[in-house]
Amino acid sequence: MRIGIAGLGTVGCGLIEMIEAQGADCPLKIIAVSARSRHKKRSINIDAYEWFESPLALAGHQDIDCVVEVMGGSEGAAKELAEAALQHGKAVVTANKALIADYGYELAALAERHDAFFGYEAAVAGGIPVIKALRESFSGNKVQAIRGILNGTCNYILSTMRETGRSFDDVLQEAQKRGYAESDPRFDIDGIDAAHKLAILAALAFGVRVPFAALPVTGIRDITAADISYAREMGYRIKLLGLAEQEENGENISLSVEPCFVDKDSPIAYIEDVLNAVMIDAHPLGQSMLVGSGAGAGPTASSVFADLTDAVHGVKRPLYGRDVSALKCLPNDFQQRQQAQTYRYYMRLAVQDVAGVVADIAAILRDHDISISDMIQHGRDEHNPVDLVLLLHETSFAKLAKAKDEMQNLPSVIGAPMLMRILS
Amino acid sequence: MRIGIAGLGTVGCGLIEMIEAQGADCPLKIIAVSARSRHKKRSINIDAYEWFESPLALAGHQDIDCVVEVMGGSEGAAKELAEAALQHGKAVVTANKALIADYGYELAALAERHDAFFGYEAAVAGGIPVIKALRESFSGNKVQAIRGILNGTCNYILSTMRETGRSFDDVLQEAQKRGYAESDPRFDIDGIDAAHKLAILAALAFGVRVPFAALPVTGIRDITAADISYAREMGYRIKLLGLAEQEENGENISLSVEPCFVDKDSPIAYIEDVLNAVMIDAHPLGQSMLVGSGAGAGPTASSVFADLTDAVHGVKRPLYGRDVSALKCLPNDFQQRQQAQTYRYYMRLAVQDVAGVVADIAAILRDHDISISDMIQHGRDEHNPVDLVLLLHETSFAKLAKAKDEMQNLPSVIGAPMLMRILS
Repeated sequence: MRIGIAGLGTVGCGLIEMIEAQGADCPLKIIAVSARSRHKKRSINIDAYEWFESPLALAGHQDIDCVVEVMGGSEGAAKELAEAALQHGKAVVTANKALIADYGYELAALAERHDAFFGYEAAVAGGIPVIKALRESFSGNKVQAIRGILNGTCNYILSTMRETGRSFDDVLQEAQKRGYAESDPRFDIDGIDAAHKLAILAALAFGVRVPFAALPVTGIRDITAADISYAREMGYRIKLLGLAEQEENGENISLSVEPCFVDKDSPIAYIEDVLNAVMIDAHPLGQSMLVGSGAGAGPTASSVFADLTDAVHGVKRPLYGRDVSALKCLPNDFQQRQQAQTYRYYMRLAVQDVAGVVADIAAILRDHDISISDMIQHGRDEHNPVDLVLLLHETSFAKLAKAKDEMQNLPSVIGAPMLMRILS
Repeated sequence: MRIGIAGLGTVGCGLIEMIEAQGADCPLKIIAVSARSRHKKRSINIDAYEWFESPLALAGHQDIDCVVEVMGGSEGAAKELAEAALQHGKAVVTANKALIADYGYELAALAERHDAFFGYEAAVAGGIPVIKALRESFSGNKVQAIRGILNGTCNYILSTMRETGRSFDDVLQEAQKRGYAESDPRFDIDGIDAAHKLAILAALAFGVRVPFAALPVTGIRDITAADISYAREMGYRIKLLGLAEQEENGENISLSVEPCFVDKDSPIAYIEDVLNAVMIDAHPLGQSMLVGSGAGAGPTASSVFADLTDAVHGVKRPLYGRDVSALKCLPNDFQQRQQAQTYRYYMRLAVQDVAGVVADIAAILRDHDISISDMIQHGRDEHNPVDLVLLLHETSFAKLAKAKDEMQNLPSVIGAPMLMRILS
């Protein structure tokens, strides 16, 4: 198979190294490359490959069977290139999650129309073969839940906060210095990147179109060193998770990205630093978990290579495991139904340490039919607010949101209460 | 694709349930079945399928494209059926690890000769898609190490010993009552089953033929409640692991099945009960781990189903990821080289609590150039032997075996010292 590669950053160069390392028997032959700058210093020598100033030229090149898009960016060149290549009936392999999250349904339809291979294993959770697992290995199963650590930056920040006791801002700065977080970190820390991946996984696992705006997303910027410490005290660790769950009858799909309390004795609690993990509950498979590097040149190139090998072997599966026309829409009352789902919660309030405050809060919870399972208050301070921490029995977010509003109106409660779901 | 199923135990019935649940669009059509008894009570109704008294009849049936072998047993009927089906050019899917471990190379050659599909995902680690991961997802990588919890029975026993503090014999009996261990448990607890799976994984990952007899295998029957407790005290858990490692240049392959100390903060320490896990270190992928149920009707049927779907899609990859003629042999001095590899070790000795015993043991270790990193001795007892526990710095098994022999000859040392590798 003759390949054209658009993008010669770390992933593109990593891929070229991998292909060159296979030697002469490798069925993948690199024909041409394209990147922003031809003469930038790179780890590999590109002289043997035809050079194009415009990546779009790869799509129309008669000697190329497959275009690899590793430029990034969901708009402009990446999208145009993928579309043009598919229209020419060429195979496309990409590592671009934003492209799939924003235009996956369109690209899937285009790939179907032109009977073209489209691979995007590298776009979700880097080196973890979760697309292949869902689309091939677990294909006969009914997926009940996907729970994933899908963003390495957030996992690094939360792990480091737990290990060092340092604040979010402090650890974020370190992550930026180390290159684990962007200078504008919002895309990662506010959960958008994880939500992109979750939307792709949910479409694949449940056969639904996920309108990105309908996805409730909470990031990690409000998590304090105290939250991390209370979690530990109560036998949990905090992880930013992408959650996609459906009840057994296929009803009541829930989707969210949010920081969660996970049991300190569960394997996922030990997936630390920049690692990603995807837990899949399915019938009749049972529980399964895939762990690996979610980013980086090596893992990403490894997944791109796997897609290319599939293309060589003619393994052509629909993008979402079924024709794009077979994808269902979420029900209109999706958000109401989701808010009616019941889970256990962690709640932290900053309160003035005055008589009666606990009674007021307990009364509000009682009025909304919410039971307390555990409570922590350490020490007392007449001059500064103290933390009141509650673990709550199963309740709906709808009820909890009302209780939270009422609590915020109490004069002795300072700021907004912090809420996190406890994973069962 | 028209299927004949040989074997209607829990896996065979689970598979039929899965296929029937897909509805009319399923490309898999069950044509015929065969089992020991036609009229046994089963969870499914087999009246719609043609019945054969002899499974071998499926191999020659003109309306069958693919034979599913879920009878078990590496000799006799299972082997004959697989061979006959391949000779007829039919696809074969099996869940039979003993068959692959004993006759995999022969069957691979036969499948190549007749250009037939051969699937065995279910044979290694049940529902975990590790064969697909190694053969497809990580295909461009150089695998450096595979470390796996490959036997659910052993993992259940070790987990339960740790949780309850009970003895090996006691927990084994419970496992037998619960159906997690056979009435003759040797195949599991002595590591043979794990070694079968490791041999298959090593062949696939390293491209080597693994002569089963060359594989050093240690089971878990000598592990005491005290070992479990010392491991905890030192920050470890004990897991029976299949280990396949090679140095970066492809030299010095090491293969073994043995109980190991794993760091209590590593994810693999939390893979408990009957779960299996496979950790893969590869370049450029980095570290990866796949976790799931290693046995049981559902997970096994799920993997058989995945193989069948691959057969439908014409995904025909060689059994070991390359032609069987391309598999290398292990070097003649494989065992010597392996014994020269250095690892950290746990050592427990039962000693008479008399003056000078520690000095004698320390002198033996010094003479063999082995350093002690940690030492535990709790309490003292003039009348009964006490445990002396040592953690040793990196040393070769060859050196350690000599030191162990000398220690055993000391009058104050009772019985054979217990040795376990500490995973780094």
